[in-house]
Order: sequence, then C-alpha cells, then structure tokens
Amino acid sequence: MRRALELARLGFGKVSPNPMVGCVIVHHDRIVGEGFHQQYGGPHAEVNAIESMENKGILPQCEVYVSLEPCAHQGKTPPCASLLAKHKVGKVIISNIDPNPLVAGKGIEILKKAGISIETGLLEEEGKELNKRFFTSQILHRPYIILKWAATADGFIARKNYDSKWISNDFSRKLVHKWRAEEDAILVGKNTALHDNPSLNVRDWVGKNPLRVVIDRELKLKKDLNLFDQKISTVCYNLNKDEALDNLSYVELEKASFFHEMLADLHARKVQSIIVEGGASTLQQFIDAGLWDEARVFQSTNCFGDGIRAPQLIDATFDGKEDLLGDTLIHFRKK
Amino acid sequence: MRRALELARLGFGKVSPNPMVGCVIVHHDRIVGEGFHQQYGGPHAEVNAIESMENKGILPQCEVYVSLEPCAHQGKTPPCASLLAKHKVGKVIISNIDPNPLVAGKGIEILKKAGISIETGLLEEEGKELNKRFFTSQILHRPYIILKWAATADGFIARKNYDSKWISNDFSRKLVHKWRAEEDAILVGKNTALHDNPSLNVRDWVGKNPLRVVIDRELKLKKDLNLFDQKISTVCYNLNKDEALDNLSYVELEKASFFHEMLADLHARKVQSIIVEGGASTLQQFIDAGLWDEARVFQSTNCFGDGIRAPQLIDATFDGKEDLLGDTLIHFRKK
Repeated sequence: MRRALELARLGFGKVSPNPMVGCVIVHHDRIVGEGFHQQYGGPHAEVNAIESMENKGILPQCEVYVSLEPCAHQGKTPPCASLLAKHKVGKVIISNIDPNPLVAGKGIEILKKAGISIETGLLEEEGKELNKRFFTSQILHRPYIILKWAATADGFIARKNYDSKWISNDFSRKLVHKWRAEEDAILVGKNTALHDNPSLNVRDWVGKNPLRVVIDRELKLKKDLNLFDQKISTVCYNLNKDEALDNLSYVELEKASFFHEMLADLHARKVQSIIVEGGASTLQQFIDAGLWDEARVFQSTNCFGDGIRAPQLIDATFDGKEDLLGDTLIHFRKK
Repeated sequence: MRRALELARLGFGKVSPNPMVGCVIVHHDRIVGEGFHQQYGGPHAEVNAIESMENKGILPQCEVYVSLEPCAHQGKTPPCASLLAKHKVGKVIISNIDPNPLVAGKGIEILKKAGISIETGLLEEEGKELNKRFFTSQILHRPYIILKWAATADGFIARKNYDSKWISNDFSRKLVHKWRAEEDAILVGKNTALHDNPSLNVRDWVGKNPLRVVIDRELKLKKDLNLFDQKISTVCYNLNKDEALDNLSYVELEKASFFHEMLADLHARKVQSIIVEGGASTLQQFIDAGLWDEARVFQSTNCFGDGIRAPQLIDATFDGKEDLLGDTLIHFRKK
C-alpha cells in the first residue's frame, strides 16, 4: 500500500479535481503490476495497473492494493470495480473509502457481489493526507485552506507602513512559488493587494498559475493593480458588484456570511485548495472563523523592531519545522 | 587582548560588583605574564599578571594588555596605575576606559604622567559585552535586565488557566537554572508568584541563588508562598508597605514611578543584573517601558491551541539562535 500511495503521488498537480490514486498488484508476495491515475480524464490507477501486467490470467490469484475505493460509476472511464470483478481478482485491499457521494461504498458493493474478499483502512491516514484537498472538498464542500506568512524573529509580519519586503530569503521565496503552483487558488486581502501590488503568479518555479482571489469588500482597489491585468483568471469578492469580464469576475456576497459564501463559490468553481498569503488581518479572519487546515509560517532571523504583528493561531498543533538557510519554516495543522 | 578578555571571563560570578578584568604582559611578542581579577576583594588583574612573571626586571621592555583601565583609587588594593608606573612598563594597551566615576581617565592620567605610552579601545566592543552588567550599572544606574520566557510554537506563554508547565524541555530548564546562578537577582510578577508558586532558586545547576524579587502592588500574595520562605533574600515591591524582616523586605514605591524606583532601589542594593522570568504582563511592562537589555526566548515545538499570548518585543534586534534538543533559543538585544 505504501508503494500504491507513492505511485498515487506521481499524479500530483495533474489529476485535480480527481483524487490521486495508485494501484499495486501482488502475486505470491511479488509485485506483478503497478499503475496510477496520471492525468485528469485519463485511465484510472486500476486500469493502468492491470494493463502493466504481463499475464493477466493470474489475476484470480492476485491481491490488488488500491489507495482509494475503486469507482462504481461510468465517468470518463468505465467503472473500475466492475473491471476488477470481471477479472475475478483474488482480494482487494483499499486504503480510503471514497468520500464522493457518487461512489461511496458502491465500488465495494460491486466487489462483494462478485465474491471478492475485501480489506479496507490500510494506511488510511496516509491516504487521507495525500488526498487532503480532495477529501476536504468532498466532505466539507469548501477548498482545503493553507495559510502562509513570514514573520520576523520579533513577531512582525510587516513594518508599520505595510512594507513586508525582505522578510524571507531567496530560497523561501522560491518555495512559496512552488506552493502557488501546487494549489488551485491564491488569496490576498485588500491591504496586501494595495500595498504590495502582487502579481500572485508563479515566476520562480515551473508550474501552472493558480486562480487569483482578492477580497475587496468596498471595491477600493484601483484597476491598474497587477491583480487586475486579466493575464490570469481572477475573482474579486465584494459587497457591491457582480460582473464577469473575460478573465476577471466580480462576485457580490452578503456581509454576514461573506467567508462562507466565498468558499462555497470557490467550491463551485472546483477550487479544491487555496493558499492565503496575507495580510495579517485577512489571515486572522480565517483563523478566527476556524476556516483553515494548515499554516506554513516562515520565521526569519531579522527584526523589524516595530510594525504589524503576525497573526495569532488558535487551535493549532505543531506539525514539524525545517531549517531553510537560516529561516525556519514551521508547519501547523488545525486541531 | 583576546587572551586578556579570555582570562577576565574566568572571574565570572566571583568578582561582582567589580568588573571582570584580565591582563597579559608581552615581551618581544612572547607572553611573559598573565593574570585576572579572581575574587571580589582579591588582587586586581595587573597585580596577578606582574606576580606571575619570572623576571620583573624586563617590564620596561614589555607591553601590558589590560581589558579595563587600570584603577587610580586606593580601594581594597593599591592603585594599579601607580603599580604599572612604578615598574615603568614599556606600553599599556587598554580595551575599555573605566565607566566608574571614581576611576574614569584617572588611571590613564597617572600612566601618562609617568611617561608611559598608551593605546585604548582595542576590542572595545568585546570588552563592553563581557562587562555588560558592570557597564549598565555604572552608566545607567540600574541593573542589566534580561527578559526570559518560553513560548509554544503557536505563540502562547501559558494556558488560559495560567498553567505554563512543560513548555520547555529538561535541557532548557537546566539552562534556566544556570542563568539564575549567573545573575544577581530574579524577578517575577504577582500572577506568576500566585499561579506557579516558584521557589526561584538554583536547583538544577551549581551556583549561588540570586536575590528574589517580586512585584505585588496590592499585596495580594499569601505569605505561605515559596517566595516568602525566607530561605533566600527576597524583596517585595508594592504600593503599601515598608518592612524589613530577617530575609524578606517589603519596599513601598510610588505608583507613577514604580519601575524606575524599583530599579533604583535594586541598584542601591548593588544588584548589577536581573533576570525577569515572567509572566506575560510583567515582561510586557518592562518592554513597553523600554527597560530591558537582552531577551532570551525559548520556542518549543508544542502548541497550546489557545491561552495567554507571549510578550511582543519592541525595538529588538536578532542576536542569534540555538537549537536545544528540539526547542529553539532565540537571543534578542534591545536596539
């Protein structure tokens, strides 16, 4: 199953909004077939694993390790559960039950009806971690939310004039661009858009640009900001205007349920994950609302002396730290 | 001079309230004598260095490196400047001019009058760092103030119920006891005295106990707290009561100038350094008043999720960090 999860991970960034899935076929303790879901719209892991076998005739004597419950619905490909049933495989070992209501338990049902023995829950946590974006989207109907900021050693996120430059080193900045390429969307608040005028694109890494999201309740931001250049799709959530230009959408939300409506709208746009890059006030709003899953906090070794205080996490658990050429990267999860 | 400073440091913890001083005598690029101030009341560094020489007759051809200006006043020992003048040493190289008004420049004057050539300021910063407690006391007429706290990775100093146990690891706790032994006094506020009931003594290290200081403005603390056991001298600063028991003094201060009066009183008690161990509110008061020199902040890898927020440093500069078996110790200086 570890190998199946390892294979699954190779689909990272290519299969969304599908989950990453890996499949390993074992015959008398030897791996005889491997496969993973490689591309959105392409064949599923089970199909690739079976295709990779030299002799499909031994499948009834094989155990099939698959990281996610085989699908039961006719989607872009035929249902995998039926395929496994057709081949009368010896046993199916599953890490995670599919949280997708279109599948949940139905794949297992098909296999059981075919008299195939089944085991579930092997490396369940690892499987959930791998597909945390997919699971969050399926279960909570909102994107997986990653908070990111860089703080000075003395706990400031920016100077008093909002200048936040040079908090983190080159390596850290490169890493941030890698992270952007890994998520479906990136979000900043009005102050960050105004004072930093960020492009929020992926420059220091190779990868796709995420959807840009900005919160500008009162529509105070000027149109000549980089965010509004329409080079990348951008959504601006606000209280006053609904408008869809070529590559820029204004979405009007209710004040009282702003965050929940925003996340529901992003979910409807098939955004499975979003990285929130600031500023302090926006980050704190996500924290205070309990709307976050992971926080990645850079701690640099310089001091600002005074300025805008870094956000205060609530209900966080420590999830490891890394030394990045002087900076420290601290990982947190929400309890 | 590096060697002189190295020697001086050997007097750490033994010469207070005197400064640490080291002396190296050089003849044709070879060290022919060394000494340092070893014990309060004992001979000065210059005396020890000269005594260590095999042949004092070569002194007129020698350079004398001394980390602090030789004294000119008849204290517990005869003036060192006169001693050097009597021996007609070839040259005297001094790191720091003495900030003590009883000496300042007078030692140099005696040497000059004797026709001895003088150089000053060599490794001046290193010398000031070595005797930072002494210099602060002499120049600012208050103790050198070290702030110390341990924060969780998510930035809390204690849980909501004031429980601050297990923030830092065993090694860190041992280090804190070493630090206590190094300073003249240790201070906590009322809440820490109440909720932690600390003994504020040196248990996990070999060394002297510092004077215990507690701030209890309204005299809310009960007499059965460990702090008031009279096993170690303790001073309680407050707004209501002046009283001196055997080993416990109550000192009444004015509300408006509480901190300044307290530090003046500690200065009068020859306290050259104080370590402030909490809690958050007391530490923040020192920070907000700009009354601190150094902060030592442990950052652990656990999270409290919620609680009492760690103090926010103002006007801090980063001064290095150390990894302590998982905990990180971050050093700050005041700008």
